Amino acid sequence: MSDNQHILEEYPLLSHIDSPADLRHLPLEQLPAVCAELRKFIIDVLSRNPGHFASSMGTVEITVALHYVFNTPYDRIVWDVGHQAYSHKILTGRRDRFETNRTLGGLSGFPNPKESEYDTFTAGHASNSISAALGMAIASQVNHDAVKRNVVAVIGDASISGGLAFEGLNNASISNSNMLIILNDNDMAIDENVGALGEYMAHLNTSKRYNDFRYKAYKFLRLHNLVNERNKGAILRFNNSLKALLSSQQNIFEGLNIRYFGPFDGHNVAEIVRVLSDIKDMNGPRILHLRTRKGKGFKPAEDDPATWHAPGKFNKETGERYVSDPTGKPPKWQDVFGHTLVELAHANEKIVGITAAMPTGCSMSFMLNAFPERAFDVGIAEGHAVTLSGGMAKDGLMPFCCIYSTFLQRAYDEIIHDVAIQNLPVTFCIDRAGLVGEDGVTHHGAFDMAYLRSIPNMIIASPMNEQWLRDLMYTAQLRTEGPMAIRYPRGSGVTPEWRTEMHKVEVGRGRQLATGDAPVAVLTIGPIGNDVANALKELEAEGHRVAHYDMVFLKPIDEDILRCVSESCSHIVTVEDGTKCGGLGSAVMEWLNDNGRNSVQVHRIGIPDAFVTQGTVPQLRKLCKMDTESIKAKIKELLNQNV
Amino acid sequence: MSDNQHILEEYPLLSHIDSPADLRHLPLEQLPAVCAELRKFIIDVLSRNPGHFASSMGTVEITVALHYVFNTPYDRIVWDVGHQAYSHKILTGRRDRFETNRTLGGLSGFPNPKESEYDTFTAGHASNSISAALGMAIASQVNHDAVKRNVVAVIGDASISGGLAFEGLNNASISNSNMLIILNDNDMAIDENVGALGEYMAHLNTSKRYNDFRYKAYKFLRLHNLVNERNKGAILRFNNSLKALLSSQQNIFEGLNIRYFGPFDGHNVAEIVRVLSDIKDMNGPRILHLRTRKGKGFKPAEDDPATWHAPGKFNKETGERYVSDPTGKPPKWQDVFGHTLVELAHANEKIVGITAAMPTGCSMSFMLNAFPERAFDVGIAEGHAVTLSGGMAKDGLMPFCCIYSTFLQRAYDEIIHDVAIQNLPVTFCIDRAGLVGEDGVTHHGAFDMAYLRSIPNMIIASPMNEQWLRDLMYTAQLRTEGPMAIRYPRGSGVTPEWRTEMHKVEVGRGRQLATGDAPVAVLTIGPIGNDVANALKELEAEGHRVAHYDMVFLKPIDEDILRCVSESCSHIVTVEDGTKCGGLGSAVMEWLNDNGRNSVQVHRIGIPDAFVTQGTVPQLRKLCKMDTESIKAKIKELLNQNV
Repeated sequence: MSDNQHILEEYPLLSHIDSPADLRHLPLEQLPAVCAELRKFIIDVLSRNPGHFASSMGTVEITVALHYVFNTPYDRIVWDVGHQAYSHKILTGRRDRFETNRTLGGLSGFPNPKESEYDTFTAGHASNSISAALGMAIASQVNHDAVKRNVVAVIGDASISGGLAFEGLNNASISNSNMLIILNDNDMAIDENVGALGEYMAHLNTSKRYNDFRYKAYKFLRLHNLVNERNKGAILRFNNSLKALLSSQQNIFEGLNIRYFGPFDGHNVAEIVRVLSDIKDMNGPRILHLRTRKGKGFKPAEDDPATWHAPGKFNKETGERYVSDPTGKPPKWQDVFGHTLVELAHANEKIVGITAAMPTGCSMSFMLNAFPERAFDVGIAEGHAVTLSGGMAKDGLMPFCCIYSTFLQRAYDEIIHDVAIQNLPVTFCIDRAGLVGEDGVTHHGAFDMAYLRSIPNMIIASPMNEQWLRDLMYTAQLRTEGPMAIRYPRGSGVTPEWRTEMHKVEVGRGRQLATGDAPVAVLTIGPIGNDVANALKELEAEGHRVAHYDMVFLKPIDEDILRCVSESCSHIVTVEDGTKCGGLGSAVMEWLNDNGRNSVQVHRIGIPDAFVTQGTVPQLRKLCKMDTESIKAKIKELLNQNV
Repeated sequence: MSDNQHILEEYPLLSHIDSPADLRHLPLEQLPAVCAELRKFIIDVLSRNPGHFASSMGTVEITVALHYVFNTPYDRIVWDVGHQAYSHKILTGRRDRFETNRTLGGLSGFPNPKESEYDTFTAGHASNSISAALGMAIASQVNHDAVKRNVVAVIGDASISGGLAFEGLNNASISNSNMLIILNDNDMAIDENVGALGEYMAHLNTSKRYNDFRYKAYKFLRLHNLVNERNKGAILRFNNSLKALLSSQQNIFEGLNIRYFGPFDGHNVAEIVRVLSDIKDMNGPRILHLRTRKGKGFKPAEDDPATWHAPGKFNKETGERYVSDPTGKPPKWQDVFGHTLVELAHANEKIVGITAAMPTGCSMSFMLNAFPERAFDVGIAEGHAVTLSGGMAKDGLMPFCCIYSTFLQRAYDEIIHDVAIQNLPVTFCIDRAGLVGEDGVTHHGAFDMAYLRSIPNMIIASPMNEQWLRDLMYTAQLRTEGPMAIRYPRGSGVTPEWRTEMHKVEVGRGRQLATGDAPVAVLTIGPIGNDVANALKELEAEGHRVAHYDMVFLKPIDEDILRCVSESCSHIVTVEDGTKCGGLGSAVMEWLNDNGRNSVQVHRIGIPDAFVTQGTVPQLRKLCKMDTESIKAKIKELLNQNV
């Protein structure tokens, strides 16, 4: 049996859906079967090629209904945090390429406008969908589109708690733009949902009785042409009073003057189609609240959606996850951070931990368990996490604020205004720094060293191994003032026996790892120094002894090392897992020029000044000429030119 | 009569208040007189030494009541956007230095923790107070403070619409921390309040009848010891239902489970003291809603608070503002931007304008008047402004998004994630770039060139004069893809006759302004090039001919100029009105090293890697060695060394 025949038999409906137009030709009754096939397909592919699982399983019906009711791609669907969008990719002409999801040259794991006209907007960072969709809805008005264009934002209950989403909602509510916001309410973000908005939504669901009634009343009025511009306000007021009588809960969205419908069952595709058809031609901003379940349709994921957020490879029959045995292997950087923070917190009662919706991912969960009163997950709210840390530091606490590099961009102003200007002792533990691999263009931690280096008062460090991470964290909590950033990458470190004793290190002091007699020296920062050390070992075997310094600190930079190197060498190679534009290489050049030693030429190795695609980290390193081979080749080229 | 006697007579109460402790010794009945003296004092000083006027006039009673009821500085008052805090400064030991407000070496125009222990947190950028106050309230718990510490955030109705404030509110509402949020509701930000939250508050005020009743009911229950932890929930529910019966409006804050009190008259100091005393010992987060009037107590300011936000010098008797006659003088950069945008919008129907709460300040008001359907003030919501622009650009519009440099920091992630990754044609008009003068440390536009330069796909330009601003804007709207930033400073340009015809310029192309025969060349970007030109003219008179290039573009940088200069000179001086750390100088070094021309030494003139204080722009330029004299001296030093 050929592959093609196999697919036709296994997926009798899906195999014929090459675009949403094909979907729209099916009768409503067949949609549940399409949903079942989509689930089966996602389970099958993801069991072999890992990706984000639970979110996409939860949005199957929403996706089918949206493409069934709306005229995509003319109508716009804007996904918020795109790892819920796998069904969307499969239905929009990418079924046969879905096997390549998150691989180099393959499909992006998130909606990507460069990949498909159905992917309307970048969707890697949470909470941007309402603002982007509002922009499109306004564009449709300003463009005087002859055919009415519908714009739909699909946002999860965790993402809507982000400040950007609130700003979008607040602005949308005074706009007369034609926009529908679908609130995909699955009761949790990657970890659990936090904040009043979460509690609030739980209550909202208890008021279903009222909403059912109101929805029917609205349909009745509309059917009899009793809704018009003149009496809309009166109806809204009537509705709100009615609601208050029937439920004990206020409705925030109606407080913001956005028409609200729901909650409805987000797994009843026929019901969603019906509701969408009813409200699609209404004007002005609307919210449709759908209740879904993460992992829906795959029991192990339904039972433990946090683990199944991105489960890795698994057995699709038994649900067994193929987790490799960690014994004797180096730990994850995240776990070293998490355990070390708890260890330090035992000795220093001023230490508190703050994270923004990523306690499991960054292992702040250890601190949350050990010291629940001194650990805070503030939800998707990076700016708040930083300013909150500032407030805590102002009154004597020692906050460790752990955020992924790419998401910390959301808090850039807060770092400057609420921490650095006051020179407060907040320690930023910057997780996922550097190339992150399969999550791709929106998730690489490429910019943090460059964007932090311009901030006065900032100490910026990166450990080359676990011991240094621990020593830097130990040193950080001894400070009495000034912000300090410690960046480390995603994934495994290098030291199986990492629970070493901790020591204070000198801020701004690097270390020499290898001496040399060549006119070339290499300066590195962070774990990429290990790859450089390997390259230099190979070169040594070939007869070249090249000096290697682990700078540890980007700022303040070790001037003794720079002085020494610039006296003995004519070439400096800098290697960093961050953008070359403004990072370590630039810092070295600045010092050399300021000190009249610019005759030494600097060669920068790092992430180029371009957005980098997805792939495995080794693949991407190679692409960026940051892998061991490329580094070795570059140094060799310099040695050959200068011996 | 001596100055001292004069003050004693004019301000019989105020002259004896050297700290809030003195205030707390006064009987309640005297507080209105203190308020009257405070207003008189503010009017007197600000009529001579300009500052933010209307906001501080509106918060006199709130400030007096807060320091009267709370045990400051042990209790924490966190001001949101600190230009409402003049009374606070005057009451907290800084009365006699208030004359020096906003001047070099004098008091900061905003709360400044380095200046006073009463200034608890930096307060230059809006919406941070709730997060910072929550951090302090949590710190008090973690620290196990023996004496209960009250923490109060004072936030305006415009600031509370910022995403950061919402993130703070959302987090505060699930916290049991002891925090009071005072909503200072004056119905407008610097310009008018926008967004549903604004409309919402207007409605809230109409429900005063209900709130009066509820407040009395609460006091009754409390008086009779009928409020306890067990029945608190029931009372809250009862309250909410009651409210819904009496008013047509939902209460967002109660939707978020934050106890709400108000609205009360924010100019009735006795009433505020009473309410504060009543609710001060309650636990958990609370909101007190006070209605105030900007400019209160000075008729011209009450009538036109936007103009009187920062009116400049004025006659305190007549209210006449001392505005200089603009005839024959160069226009403000802002007005050139505003008029040019309207001019371009007439010819290009895809152009839209977006600003974040600063339409008057940045002159987007011209576009709002000329094309109300194509201009958008989104309120204090910089992140949303940028993502909205991204959505608009995605669907064919040509957005000009105008935000002050320092506030654009709030949208750093949105610039990267929602614009640059997709390479969308959004034009960022970055106002108040460079040193801004009296607003000081929180407001200097020091970082934009450095933080934007690391972003791939970004075009960054700065015009040296009005014609170039117009040409750059003209060029920007001809693009079909890619973000472009155009930065220009606060204040006046250089060309009285600025309405020149517009031309397309080549992206990445600078221009030579002066030829030279010295081994030194000067590269500048932006209007500071005019100061350099003056310095070079003086040097020419002394017999030195130094080449001068206006780079116009920071990115892409003009490689032809760099090639040419590096062939003919051994020294390059770069001059920029932005941080030296990662800006033009660094870009030049990167190119020289990448091209093996690093033997040319680069000398950077720009804002040092430190936070810069307030003062006049010329004073600060001098302080940073960026003034004409210092530039000239630096070049001369190089000439002397190298001839």
